[in-house]
Amino acid sequence: MLPEAVTQYLETHREEHLVRLMELLALPSIANIKSVPDGCRQAAEWLVEHMTNLGLEAEILPTAGKPNVLASLHVRDDAPTLLIYGHYDVQPPEPLELWESDPFDPEVRDGKLYARGANDDKGQFFTHLMAIEAWQRAGGGLPVNVKFFIEGEEEIGSPNLEPFVAEHADRLGADFAVISDSAFFAPGLPSITYALRGIVYLEVSLRGGAADAHSGLHGGALGNPIHVLAKLIAAMHDDAGRVTIPGYYDNVLPLAESERDAWAKLPFDEAGYAASLGVDTLAGGEKGYSVLERLWARPTLDCNGIVGGFTAPGAKTIIPAEASAKVSMRLVAEQDPERVAAALERFVADHTPDGFTATVKRHALARPLLLTTDSPAMEAARAALKEAFGGESAMIRCGASVPVAELIQRLLGIEAVLMGFGLPDDNLHAPNEKFDLSQFYSGAVAAAAFMHNLRRR
Amino acid sequence: MLPEAVTQYLETHREEHLVRLMELLALPSIANIKSVPDGCRQAAEWLVEHMTNLGLEAEILPTAGKPNVLASLHVRDDAPTLLIYGHYDVQPPEPLELWESDPFDPEVRDGKLYARGANDDKGQFFTHLMAIEAWQRAGGGLPVNVKFFIEGEEEIGSPNLEPFVAEHADRLGADFAVISDSAFFAPGLPSITYALRGIVYLEVSLRGGAADAHSGLHGGALGNPIHVLAKLIAAMHDDAGRVTIPGYYDNVLPLAESERDAWAKLPFDEAGYAASLGVDTLAGGEKGYSVLERLWARPTLDCNGIVGGFTAPGAKTIIPAEASAKVSMRLVAEQDPERVAAALERFVADHTPDGFTATVKRHALARPLLLTTDSPAMEAARAALKEAFGGESAMIRCGASVPVAELIQRLLGIEAVLMGFGLPDDNLHAPNEKFDLSQFYSGAVAAAAFMHNLRRR
Repeated sequence: MLPEAVTQYLETHREEHLVRLMELLALPSIANIKSVPDGCRQAAEWLVEHMTNLGLEAEILPTAGKPNVLASLHVRDDAPTLLIYGHYDVQPPEPLELWESDPFDPEVRDGKLYARGANDDKGQFFTHLMAIEAWQRAGGGLPVNVKFFIEGEEEIGSPNLEPFVAEHADRLGADFAVISDSAFFAPGLPSITYALRGIVYLEVSLRGGAADAHSGLHGGALGNPIHVLAKLIAAMHDDAGRVTIPGYYDNVLPLAESERDAWAKLPFDEAGYAASLGVDTLAGGEKGYSVLERLWARPTLDCNGIVGGFTAPGAKTIIPAEASAKVSMRLVAEQDPERVAAALERFVADHTPDGFTATVKRHALARPLLLTTDSPAMEAARAALKEAFGGESAMIRCGASVPVAELIQRLLGIEAVLMGFGLPDDNLHAPNEKFDLSQFYSGAVAAAAFMHNLRRR
Repeated sequence: MLPEAVTQYLETHREEHLVRLMELLALPSIANIKSVPDGCRQAAEWLVEHMTNLGLEAEILPTAGKPNVLASLHVRDDAPTLLIYGHYDVQPPEPLELWESDPFDPEVRDGKLYARGANDDKGQFFTHLMAIEAWQRAGGGLPVNVKFFIEGEEEIGSPNLEPFVAEHADRLGADFAVISDSAFFAPGLPSITYALRGIVYLEVSLRGGAADAHSGLHGGALGNPIHVLAKLIAAMHDDAGRVTIPGYYDNVLPLAESERDAWAKLPFDEAGYAASLGVDTLAGGEKGYSVLERLWARPTLDCNGIVGGFTAPGAKTIIPAEASAKVSMRLVAEQDPERVAAALERFVADHTPDGFTATVKRHALARPLLLTTDSPAMEAARAALKEAFGGESAMIRCGASVPVAELIQRLLGIEAVLMGFGLPDDNLHAPNEKFDLSQFYSGAVAAAAFMHNLRRR
């Protein structure tokens, strides 16, 4: 159990912590926007000042893009060290007209804090700063040494992350790591995410003639790259929703019976989930698997965008010279991104007829993540969540990719615990993003308890 | 034979006619551009003034878009009346950087006149004005009554043409009609076009979820409208290049053996044609037909554009809510645009799975045209071309659609003669559009001879 003084401190400083978080949320730290002043730099500077006030050594470190913040507080040589990852950058707020309040003027309504980044991820990583403050000012000092790594480009795919982690591996080294950038499976059901999907994101372009040509004068003679691209995309799935690229499933780990059984018992409202996406039929994925199995344990292929020829309103009669599609695949353990990318490149080449030229550009490759669920850090997180929220945690997977988790594992040798405090309806990446204040305050208790639980290990 | 005085007049006034045409070409009459001053209105006013100087009664008539010019010159009640159609609007000149001289500052280089509209269509319809001038000032007066109809929206698909022709059918009524907006099959080979393809231009949209959704969190559950659209487009052709829409070929007139034989004898350089399009394989159209047969006598289906999801540079991981494609079909006699459009609409509905909504929007429907080749007007045109250029004319078809020709036939009851003076390398709709001056001057002789040949009929 946490010392009473720590929980008491968090309880009596709620207002103050909320006001501080709102200051940070007011800074428009969107990584892919160039503005003066730069919202990203403002957020990084705010964090360094706040962390310094809490007694951490903090500094801003540059990357080829937006800077990162590193900070540390060493309390005892014989204490274990915890690395806390977060990101201060946020999604662009558009479409603005759908927000009920200004995305960068945080507002509390009905016990919920509304702002861009309230949940993803400023509000979530802020809970760990609150925990540090409580331990230092009321708990007799931190039970663990802490290091903070706050990234500035997570929402644009972390283009500079891998070289940064590799370069600063010594400074980032720790015994444990925690990332609070995920959500409960359902309200009242604390959850720990133990697997993430990887990704291969490619762009396929098909070229026919040298230029757009008149579809009347040349239709029936000149080949059409939109038709070839459509046939290629259509060929990527069979009628059962399976990806047809040769070798695609070769290294997929079968789902364990125990996981299948556990997921079947989760309180999953399939109709409600479909309705939240605006559909009455969940038409994606492979036949023969449940929705959670398709989302969490099966790899997928989705076209994220397609474009070619005339796309403005009205009619223009051309056979386009070129058409292209963005194709991404979500991978599960033990698929290898490099092998999957190469398989798709061969598939494209095999489906390119005479008269056309295909090119494939690689945008991103990231490995899937599958963590052990009985590690000491996992036990510490489960106990902390039970203390803060009550009840046993659900052990869940997530279909998305969080490349930093895999980098922490591969480059730093640490299995990060994915302990998040969001709720399923928090509107991430959408208008009216929010963070329930009860989740925020109890999240800080969980963060403090997690540090406490690690001290003995 | 034309009276010597008429040919003499055209010969001695070449410089003057060229200068006049260059005045008209300098006016940037692009129909889909709003500018001050309005280049379309300037061109219409220039034409009215020029025609009035030639003794015609000319006026500008408004439409819902750019205005048209109507003019007439009645010489004798017992003479037949010839309707001459042309269009003063031109294609946009972009990309400007590929022009060797300013598109609206006409320049003569190596016997060729370079300007936007030099050929399509200002230079071509101007030949008929030169012929009228020669007959009136040197030939003892026109052998036929003439009417001019110069349209201002041909290059944007003539959106206001049908109601205009219907409303002014009495004023446009004539015994014969001629359109000079086409080209020789090859240099030195005068050509008359006796068939055009019709068109059905539709836009197909497929909607899945209510909004773009995260492809990691929802990939494997949420259906993807790009995949459905790709399957739909892929299903529109079989492996032999035939359109698979049920009933599509029902009313297609088979190609006559005589036409097949005649086209096989045309000096068609297939490799050169492919090279002009930038390909080494002509991959479009149906197996079992020659290139000219596929272009002229067989209907086609081409996607003119496709768009859905994320299309900016880089990567964004979404399953899009919507994807759409522009689909156009070129029709041959006796296909009915309404039946073909309805067949495609049924095909789309049949290929829309549960979880998706399809909509089809109609952009344009135009009937195919197939004229008799032994009419008195055709004979008059062949004789005129022989007198002006020497040699027998090739009777050819064209894969494009010229809706006005079908409207003249259907609403005015006249089979227009498509007698054009362009050459295959005139760069229509492209940078460095040109008109060979020898074609221009001899075209005026042909126009004068055509009037002469009609007088007796």
